[in-house]
Amino acid sequence: MFHEIPLSRPVTPLLDQVPTPDKLRELPLNALPELARELREYLLWSTGQTGGHFGAGLGVIELTVALHYVYNTPHDRVVWDVGHQTYPHKILTGRKEQMLTMRQQDGLAAFPRREESPYDTFGVGHSSTSISAALGMARAAELTGSERKVVAVIGDGAMTAGMAFEALNDAAHQNTNMLVILNDNQMSISHAVGGLSNYFSHIWASKSYIALREGGKRVLQSMPTAMNFVRRTEEQMKTMVTDAPGALFESIGFNYVGPIDGHNLEELVETIANLSEAQGPQLLHVFTTKGKGFAPAEADPIGYHAISKIAPVAERKAADTPTPMSTPAAVAASVKPKKYSDVFGDWLCATAAADLRVVGITPAMCEGSGMVRFAGEYPERYHDVAIAEQHAVTFAAGLACEGFKPVVAIYSTFLQRGYDQLIHDVALQNLDVTFAIDRAGLVGEDGPTHAGAYDLAFLRCIPNMIIAAPSDEAECHALLTAAWQHPGPSAVRYPRGTGTGASLYSHAEQVEIGHARRIRDGHEVAIVNFGSRLEAVVQAADELKRMGLASPTIIDMRWVKPLDEDCLAALASSHSLIVSVEEHALMGGAGSAVSEWLHAEGYACGLLTLGIRDAYIEHAAPAQMHAACGLDRDGMVRSIAARLARTQLGH
Amino acid sequence: MFHEIPLSRPVTPLLDQVPTPDKLRELPLNALPELARELREYLLWSTGQTGGHFGAGLGVIELTVALHYVYNTPHDRVVWDVGHQTYPHKILTGRKEQMLTMRQQDGLAAFPRREESPYDTFGVGHSSTSISAALGMARAAELTGSERKVVAVIGDGAMTAGMAFEALNDAAHQNTNMLVILNDNQMSISHAVGGLSNYFSHIWASKSYIALREGGKRVLQSMPTAMNFVRRTEEQMKTMVTDAPGALFESIGFNYVGPIDGHNLEELVETIANLSEAQGPQLLHVFTTKGKGFAPAEADPIGYHAISKIAPVAERKAADTPTPMSTPAAVAASVKPKKYSDVFGDWLCATAAADLRVVGITPAMCEGSGMVRFAGEYPERYHDVAIAEQHAVTFAAGLACEGFKPVVAIYSTFLQRGYDQLIHDVALQNLDVTFAIDRAGLVGEDGPTHAGAYDLAFLRCIPNMIIAAPSDEAECHALLTAAWQHPGPSAVRYPRGTGTGASLYSHAEQVEIGHARRIRDGHEVAIVNFGSRLEAVVQAADELKRMGLASPTIIDMRWVKPLDEDCLAALASSHSLIVSVEEHALMGGAGSAVSEWLHAEGYACGLLTLGIRDAYIEHAAPAQMHAACGLDRDGMVRSIAARLARTQLGH
Repeated sequence: MFHEIPLSRPVTPLLDQVPTPDKLRELPLNALPELARELREYLLWSTGQTGGHFGAGLGVIELTVALHYVYNTPHDRVVWDVGHQTYPHKILTGRKEQMLTMRQQDGLAAFPRREESPYDTFGVGHSSTSISAALGMARAAELTGSERKVVAVIGDGAMTAGMAFEALNDAAHQNTNMLVILNDNQMSISHAVGGLSNYFSHIWASKSYIALREGGKRVLQSMPTAMNFVRRTEEQMKTMVTDAPGALFESIGFNYVGPIDGHNLEELVETIANLSEAQGPQLLHVFTTKGKGFAPAEADPIGYHAISKIAPVAERKAADTPTPMSTPAAVAASVKPKKYSDVFGDWLCATAAADLRVVGITPAMCEGSGMVRFAGEYPERYHDVAIAEQHAVTFAAGLACEGFKPVVAIYSTFLQRGYDQLIHDVALQNLDVTFAIDRAGLVGEDGPTHAGAYDLAFLRCIPNMIIAAPSDEAECHALLTAAWQHPGPSAVRYPRGTGTGASLYSHAEQVEIGHARRIRDGHEVAIVNFGSRLEAVVQAADELKRMGLASPTIIDMRWVKPLDEDCLAALASSHSLIVSVEEHALMGGAGSAVSEWLHAEGYACGLLTLGIRDAYIEHAAPAQMHAACGLDRDGMVRSIAARLARTQLGH
Repeated sequence: MFHEIPLSRPVTPLLDQVPTPDKLRELPLNALPELARELREYLLWSTGQTGGHFGAGLGVIELTVALHYVYNTPHDRVVWDVGHQTYPHKILTGRKEQMLTMRQQDGLAAFPRREESPYDTFGVGHSSTSISAALGMARAAELTGSERKVVAVIGDGAMTAGMAFEALNDAAHQNTNMLVILNDNQMSISHAVGGLSNYFSHIWASKSYIALREGGKRVLQSMPTAMNFVRRTEEQMKTMVTDAPGALFESIGFNYVGPIDGHNLEELVETIANLSEAQGPQLLHVFTTKGKGFAPAEADPIGYHAISKIAPVAERKAADTPTPMSTPAAVAASVKPKKYSDVFGDWLCATAAADLRVVGITPAMCEGSGMVRFAGEYPERYHDVAIAEQHAVTFAAGLACEGFKPVVAIYSTFLQRGYDQLIHDVALQNLDVTFAIDRAGLVGEDGPTHAGAYDLAFLRCIPNMIIAAPSDEAECHALLTAAWQHPGPSAVRYPRGTGTGASLYSHAEQVEIGHARRIRDGHEVAIVNFGSRLEAVVQAADELKRMGLASPTIIDMRWVKPLDEDCLAALASSHSLIVSVEEHALMGGAGSAVSEWLHAEGYACGLLTLGIRDAYIEHAAPAQMHAACGLDRDGMVRSIAARLARTQLGH
């Protein structure tokens, strides 16, 4: 058991001997516990150096060793569900030294990535995909007559998502040779919820095989004859049935084995080796402890889900370069800038206090969505539905049918999972559900799997939707209110992290739907801002003026749908170039809406759209990502100057 | 048992006495079988008059009667899953006479609709939503202290979708008072597949309660002592466990009751009445027979899933007005126009014959997607994964990881369910999966729940995707080939129903990605066509010429992404107005892509986009829907003429 994160590189002689899994497989079985100990210490040290996901990796140290020991990776396929847990896997598969580049620009990704290593069989950022992907690989092996083996490793939290169930169901139907390892640490990012969680907890608590045996014994002792037993124990049998650990999986058609101790290497290796030879779909239930082997993380697994880097203060200062566009206003603000998720959480509490119709719903992102306070203050009206985005949306629709005004707090990237439900169950029926879309835009170190770059495109085309994009915290609060008061489906998208520090109370006025606000009057060029980049827009306008290139009008559009058409008409009539800015894909985004409108109305005014080009933006610090997209001050200045130059030359 | 569909209106004295459920509830229990008989006959007759969904309704006659008899509808909420089965419900809830307007313009919808009746608690067109919605309603009742009762009715096919599982899981966690009725007719639209289906089949076949008792008896008779039993019957117990009918649902936390006969009214009423008073989540497993009571439908439930109207021939001719834009070419064609789904099916077979890497995947839409022949000829490479769109997409991704080139055949509206998987598991990893998107655009009588009006918007913004929109059957074949040959994610969208009759072999040339084809040279106005409306475009151009208003150039763009930029540049330089045409939402669609491109390149050329305005288009005949959207010849002529007039007057 470690009690502190090592600050200096640990000595790991055994780990150094096994740069790749083929070397690992040459070790004797009894060397594996020591290897696991070194691996755990190395993970503690390297994650301390870089920051990153922590608890999940510590929990699967032994499982990772056992999998690479038993399976002939990378020929055999190990598909990890949710990439958080793959740091040990990365260390064991030739990326030990690169661990110090974790989540940095051009460094290792926090998730498996096919481009990064042949051992990374499937990219995972969103949960619950592993069984489907592994089944595809297993089926491919069957079709080609390959002896390749396939194993998926999925957490108990991820198992609550519908697609995991769909995949189990299909795997049983196909009767494919594959192993699913249920890594049960009784913990998703939030506490796992749902009936399935109760089911697992029950197993954990009751040590069910024993209970099953004891139950049978008791039954028989109290019954004189076999026939009496048969007649009178139907209820007893039913109880035993549901106490049996594998009933759920065996019902569907899996062979269930377990639960076994996921930190006992000998048991793991032996069991996995046996199951790897078995015919048909197999499920191995493994109990692990999140944060295993590091005392503070075992004691507080949620707090240690991920950690910040713990390098010395001086080093930290150098690494965390401040964003180049912090304004005097923000610097001067005495209050520490709030996270947008906390702005949302405060708004939700305030709204719930004033209106009993507020119900808050999260698909397993209580902490991330800023709902901890709401959950504590309004437990009756708080619903964590587990990793179940589809259900979250339609559950909200059901509440709205009965006159409630539910708020679904969801990351932009995860709303993609509830898209059909948003269209079919909410918007088509014009139900009053508010979507508070967090992590809209670029998300920094988590990279493209978590980027929220498409929500405007996929929501804008849906009739009945209204969509707001606040430019700071005060706006976020005001637009959430306006969207929520609207008696129909609405969405407010806001970015990850902190805002500008704008006071929540800097403007108390009611925001009207579809009305923009004027930030600055100028001429020739009008910048229409949608969302998070307003501060950089103002800086870019200042710089353009300083350079003598333009003195732009600045509009904070507030609403992507409906557009403020009066405002746009006035701009298009009085300016030669409109520049739209958004932290979103250019294709189909807010600028695209402006483009459509200008053409529909027949304006000849030019339009330059600034946003995310048609590519996935790799993980980096947020400021680096903004720069990579040309959405920082300098990038905007460059783009606008280039467009002005081109226009003056004639096309 | 009925053997023929009545051609004249049946005499239904008892049914006539109960125009609404409150009158139904005044009947004595023993009158219900006769009411059910009349209801069944009326349903046979009215569906014969209008055409429509058939088998599911016949199967739930007794269940529908029992639900409205037990529950105080509409105060209590009955949430039907998949609307097909609600024809009897509509007859019993005040819409008996309106049944003759079923699926016609301004007539009854084929699905429950909240606008249509207070008895229609939730709009359902897509499956598997009922438990989530009902849970929302049940939770609302709890929050308001209402005694309102809530029941969801879900089929065994719909139960395979992940979101149903998510909802069961959450309902168990919330421990809400609600009843889920599993209407098990061993049949979704195709044969239900998956482990869950095996599970249900097992119950059905084994009459498990009896098997459970008998199993216990045998065990005990063969064992001398209790201790021996305990020691040696673990395997036996496990078998019994998974034979127990409710194991799956009891594992999650539901109280399971059943299976019971869904055509025995007395048993239904008594059981439902008991369960309606029970605390916590209840699941009642009911066996029904699809097509029950109509001999031909019982014998061929898939063939009788829906029927065409069976009115006399003369009447039929008057009702089925031909589409006004059938061209001489199409009329002259000796071959009967093929359905697009069959074009796809033939293409799939031909491609599979030539390349072993083809795997065809459908989420329970074998017949609808035209895959019956492929399933028969290539059973090894055919996968019906059940109603499980999310899994279908990621399963394909797994196959693609191993070098296969899978084809996912999916309706546009159902692809919305696999959207996150398409982004995260396929496109982000740039995997070689082809999406054959059927039912893209307006779908006629099924109405807005099944319209495929958003796929271009939600796909176009995704990096790595290429998207084709064929204009006829030959193009569909050629573009499927081009998309499939592309070594990355691709989509081909084509409409419901038949095409123009264009021979599949009219052009054998290889289609290049991102290259448009020129249909006709003209001047001033250029019409760029995306997809299914080309025939009407040609007619509109002819009409504009006849009227002396314009002589448009016509381009069949073929590709929505990438756009043929050279072609557009040439058009924008030489025409004053570009008109885009698509059977898709205007917001974010193909015209929007053209708009973005023109602005990005700085062209002053005007753009008129024709497509579906920002509204849900109600069900009607396809020609009526096209007219309602201005996508028929006359609508296009009107829009283009108006725009030309406006331009000439100056804006």
